[in-house]
Amino acid sequence: MAVNKVGKQTLVFKNPPVIADGATIVGPKEGQGPIGRHFDKVLDDDMWGEDSWEKAESHMYDSTVRMVLEKCKLSVDQIDVMLGGDLLNQLIASNYAARELAIPFLGLYGACSTMSESLGLGSILLDGGYATHVVASCSSHFSTAERQYRNPLGLGNQRPLSAQWTVTGCGATVLTNQGVGPKITHFTIGRVMDYGVTDATNMGAAMAPAAADTIATHLYDTQRSPSDYDLIVTGDLGLIGRQLAIDLLKKSGQDVSRVFNDCGCMIFAEDQDTHSGGSGCGCSAVVFNAYLLNMLRTGEYKRILLTATGALMSPTSSLQGESIPAIAHAIAIEWGGQPTEGA
Amino acid sequence: MAVNKVGKQTLVFKNPPVIADGATIVGPKEGQGPIGRHFDKVLDDDMWGEDSWEKAESHMYDSTVRMVLEKCKLSVDQIDVMLGGDLLNQLIASNYAARELAIPFLGLYGACSTMSESLGLGSILLDGGYATHVVASCSSHFSTAERQYRNPLGLGNQRPLSAQWTVTGCGATVLTNQGVGPKITHFTIGRVMDYGVTDATNMGAAMAPAAADTIATHLYDTQRSPSDYDLIVTGDLGLIGRQLAIDLLKKSGQDVSRVFNDCGCMIFAEDQDTHSGGSGCGCSAVVFNAYLLNMLRTGEYKRILLTATGALMSPTSSLQGESIPAIAHAIAIEWGGQPTEGA
Repeated sequence: MAVNKVGKQTLVFKNPPVIADGATIVGPKEGQGPIGRHFDKVLDDDMWGEDSWEKAESHMYDSTVRMVLEKCKLSVDQIDVMLGGDLLNQLIASNYAARELAIPFLGLYGACSTMSESLGLGSILLDGGYATHVVASCSSHFSTAERQYRNPLGLGNQRPLSAQWTVTGCGATVLTNQGVGPKITHFTIGRVMDYGVTDATNMGAAMAPAAADTIATHLYDTQRSPSDYDLIVTGDLGLIGRQLAIDLLKKSGQDVSRVFNDCGCMIFAEDQDTHSGGSGCGCSAVVFNAYLLNMLRTGEYKRILLTATGALMSPTSSLQGESIPAIAHAIAIEWGGQPTEGA
Repeated sequence: MAVNKVGKQTLVFKNPPVIADGATIVGPKEGQGPIGRHFDKVLDDDMWGEDSWEKAESHMYDSTVRMVLEKCKLSVDQIDVMLGGDLLNQLIASNYAARELAIPFLGLYGACSTMSESLGLGSILLDGGYATHVVASCSSHFSTAERQYRNPLGLGNQRPLSAQWTVTGCGATVLTNQGVGPKITHFTIGRVMDYGVTDATNMGAAMAPAAADTIATHLYDTQRSPSDYDLIVTGDLGLIGRQLAIDLLKKSGQDVSRVFNDCGCMIFAEDQDTHSGGSGCGCSAVVFNAYLLNMLRTGEYKRILLTATGALMSPTSSLQGESIPAIAHAIAIEWGGQPTEGA
């Protein structure tokens, strides 16, 4: 058994990395949602002066990272490594941003689970003494995702009620090995789960088993119960997936219903007509780096479990008749101190 | 400064992870090449009984991982985490393999740099006490890559002489925190570099600056010279990129020419008509897990620097007029012991 691991899949940080700060840039629709006032910058339009949506997403990524560095009074040179990714083929949003930033970069692909994957791996680098400052980050963009995964927007296809709305947004976190603030204490690495869902417009159902598996494993590994958390929050299950995850966890003996929510259900209001809620790796990235971080800093939440969830199919695998595998990684964060400056 | 880091970008392992074993499966063309006898399994055809090339690649991935576990007499349950990726959109080769294996999985995207990215992150997990057994892995497939990045094979497009041939192959390594064998001592994390190359059929030229930057940084960080290595080997620069990397390093004051080679130049013979050599993340994965590992075990090489290189463009970014950014990550491996059993 590894010394910094408990149970089957959970890493424990003996020198828990501190969340120095987070930054977020979102699109107009996200800014109009119920937690809109928490975001650092709301764009007026999702092209942001670029000549393609893909370039706009990369611009947003680069700017969000520079914004969080500015908040932390850090220069690019002081960052040991940036970890991140996005939903686009070959990670062009994050790779082109990493080119502009010229920071040592480790590219990750976990679909919409990337925010917790990057926070988890970043925490390992800090806790293990391999770095003093790390950026964890990811982005998504409604229009780049529609173009790549679904139909050209110009067709105006009707979206089924189970469909989710890809969040236009980027979130970036600076993690450090010193200072005060919310700390990352555990990282539960998920397994790929597949219950045979083949409907790419019902990703919440495809991802719910992976979310439930990782949360149940985390609770088992740490010998905690749901009531040990003020909030257990998934990435982007949406309304349908959230209920399925609650039901699956109940079957495995864990009643999480009192402390459970989903970033995809928090970011948009019902009258914003997104159907089942938000999705995309930007979803958990911006909800975490804005709203959840503020709630931790003001003491509203003392301990949360952030469980970002990713659907791992591609248009190619769907066309070849494959079902949709999914993964979820969980990060335990706690902060029992006084409200911090940034709160 | 982090305690387990030297210079700007290089992590140092105080408990250097041991390479327990490697396994490789390759396509027919790779099996006919100059190092063909080193591969564990050579396929008769690149469909391998599946009804799509993508499914064949995923099958190859799953089988290579099972093969290396069998060599190490380990069960799937004994693996703490698998790290890996491939070139396909949304990593469908590795994600679908991870579904079959049901191992905790961290998906990486570094294009053809994925083998050293996975070995590096796996080494951190072991050295830091977060795991006892890790699988590092990646794959590529000529026909899936042609379909996705270039032209349908049926068109029979002529390939320019600067083009490289995507290797059909998967390599998987088991790393552990105990035992004897070649050890990973350093991990130099690369930065994204872009010298403005826009020709997607000349990826060697696009990747050479990233390779040179990472190698020069590694030598500077560790205060080593090229002659401290028996071999400095890049991932898949091919004939054109290899020469460019040697020239760029010479300009930065490092003459690597006596110890330098490239996996893309080693895997195919000139009469195999691949033009500039092999490419794809399977290229460094299979050359490393077969030929290089054997050379380390027999004592032919005492110390090598494996520098896998990735071109990070996508067809979308190329169509939008972007140049090709690239990245390279380097892993220092040494073995001064007696030839080991598997040699």
